[in-house]
Amino acid sequence: MSILVVGSLAFDDIETPFGSSPDTLGGSSTYIALSASYFSDDINMVGVVGSDFTDEHFTLLHSRNIDTQGIRKVEDGKTFRWAGRYHYDMNTRDTLDTRLNVFADFDPHVPEQYRKSKFVCLGNIDPELQVKVLDQITAPEMVICDTMNFWIEGKPEELKKTLERVDVFIINDSEARILSGDPNLVRSARIIREMGPKILIIKKGEHGALLFTDSGIFAAPAYPLESIYDPTGAGDTFAGGFIGHLSRCENITDLELRKAVLYGSAMASFCVEMFGTERVVGLDLLEIEDRYQSFLDLSRIEA
Amino acid sequence: MSILVVGSLAFDDIETPFGSSPDTLGGSSTYIALSASYFSDDINMVGVVGSDFTDEHFTLLHSRNIDTQGIRKVEDGKTFRWAGRYHYDMNTRDTLDTRLNVFADFDPHVPEQYRKSKFVCLGNIDPELQVKVLDQITAPEMVICDTMNFWIEGKPEELKKTLERVDVFIINDSEARILSGDPNLVRSARIIREMGPKILIIKKGEHGALLFTDSGIFAAPAYPLESIYDPTGAGDTFAGGFIGHLSRCENITDLELRKAVLYGSAMASFCVEMFGTERVVGLDLLEIEDRYQSFLDLSRIEA
Repeated sequence: MSILVVGSLAFDDIETPFGSSPDTLGGSSTYIALSASYFSDDINMVGVVGSDFTDEHFTLLHSRNIDTQGIRKVEDGKTFRWAGRYHYDMNTRDTLDTRLNVFADFDPHVPEQYRKSKFVCLGNIDPELQVKVLDQITAPEMVICDTMNFWIEGKPEELKKTLERVDVFIINDSEARILSGDPNLVRSARIIREMGPKILIIKKGEHGALLFTDSGIFAAPAYPLESIYDPTGAGDTFAGGFIGHLSRCENITDLELRKAVLYGSAMASFCVEMFGTERVVGLDLLEIEDRYQSFLDLSRIEA
Repeated sequence: MSILVVGSLAFDDIETPFGSSPDTLGGSSTYIALSASYFSDDINMVGVVGSDFTDEHFTLLHSRNIDTQGIRKVEDGKTFRWAGRYHYDMNTRDTLDTRLNVFADFDPHVPEQYRKSKFVCLGNIDPELQVKVLDQITAPEMVICDTMNFWIEGKPEELKKTLERVDVFIINDSEARILSGDPNLVRSARIIREMGPKILIIKKGEHGALLFTDSGIFAAPAYPLESIYDPTGAGDTFAGGFIGHLSRCENITDLELRKAVLYGSAMASFCVEMFGTERVVGLDLLEIEDRYQSFLDLSRIEA
């Protein structure tokens, strides 16, 4: 099934306690698309880049069979840049610099051939742009949406309008508490699901993720990794694996949603093992399946 | 199988954002014994109390079939007291007051009839006293030990001597990081297991628990509760459910260890629903089994 991915493409300057990685290809839609590409060969991106986004970068996306016709290249502009530094515990980071560059005027245009996309994945961008994307899609089967504190606090009303049209909302625990105004995650989940998305995923970083549906709650563990090199993009990589698995299901049951959370978690666990997209670019299906099995084993209780 | 529980008996003055509960029966061994009493009818306590520990309190323990002959009552002393206040998020607390009282001179004497105990649960007390208890036991099958920062930082060498004789060590994540000197929990676990305990449980509060054995890692979720009234004693209640389940197993396999972690988690999830031991005293086996099933459902992936 076709997946449309809309979000940022970026170059990141990343510093962690283990080293630094300047000029690293990043951006929410990059991670989502790369991650989903292991599950679907019909992935289409809509985004905007500058002249510094070269053939080499397009080639990398094409190597994963990703259609980039929806990426507009602004020749007299520069690609969105983000610089950040992670703390010793890798759970917190400081943003050192953000340059929107061509992303400041991003006005997503969904090419004709993408408008019948069945799966739409809205990366973390202005909720007004997220709605603008949805207005261009004919009959999406599933709309998945990510966001961040910046929009929850800065454009709460616009975000709520987006959420009315979203099927799956992916957010982290602190964002859920802010959006709902309730410190308890179970109550938060109920409040947020009443805003629209029937399926809610609350990510808890190194503590795994919670899936809330009409059928109840699923708690996915995080993979206990010995070494975490760079958490950048882990959330987007999760979203890519999640939507990727669902796109290959005939019926999206509660069981498949649970599996999708584990596939998303598996993909995210790879992402943090190297800087930027390095690890997510070079995976093979066997190691993804192995990691997925490890996630199953982690919480397996049956003999 | 008989379980010997050694630790503190106390009166707690607890304040949470939801109210306060003065003069509440508490102490590590109280929670452990009450929790384990739903799994075994051969539970024996060793501890010390003052004259303020009345027949009413003994009657409560006897109502759960707990043998209190090992509890020494010092008629001219007062029972250990702790006062604490929980913060809004319920994850952090301030100790307002600690009065050791009769506990300051606690010199655990294991009565003759307890010395052949198969399961020994050492609550959070001075590691030198923990060793003193072990010296009095003939041939324990399984020694389970809890501790806290106070001893990790204050008596590291004594604690390491205790750990050489411990089979199951239960600590929380921040304590594991301090004891091992490594911020990564997987590496921490390896370092701590090399100190002696082949089975290590790292509790992560609202994020569940990790079990490390020779067979690998098991990640137990926490039960997503809508209301948490009082976290006091949750860790000890976990330990009681854990050892309680193991005491009824013919063979302690990796599967039974995993189940024991879930039973411990189930018991802890009850504990926080009311102040002090209130909830743990009044449970029945059916609701424990129901809660255990809920834990299974939380991470169930099979159809």
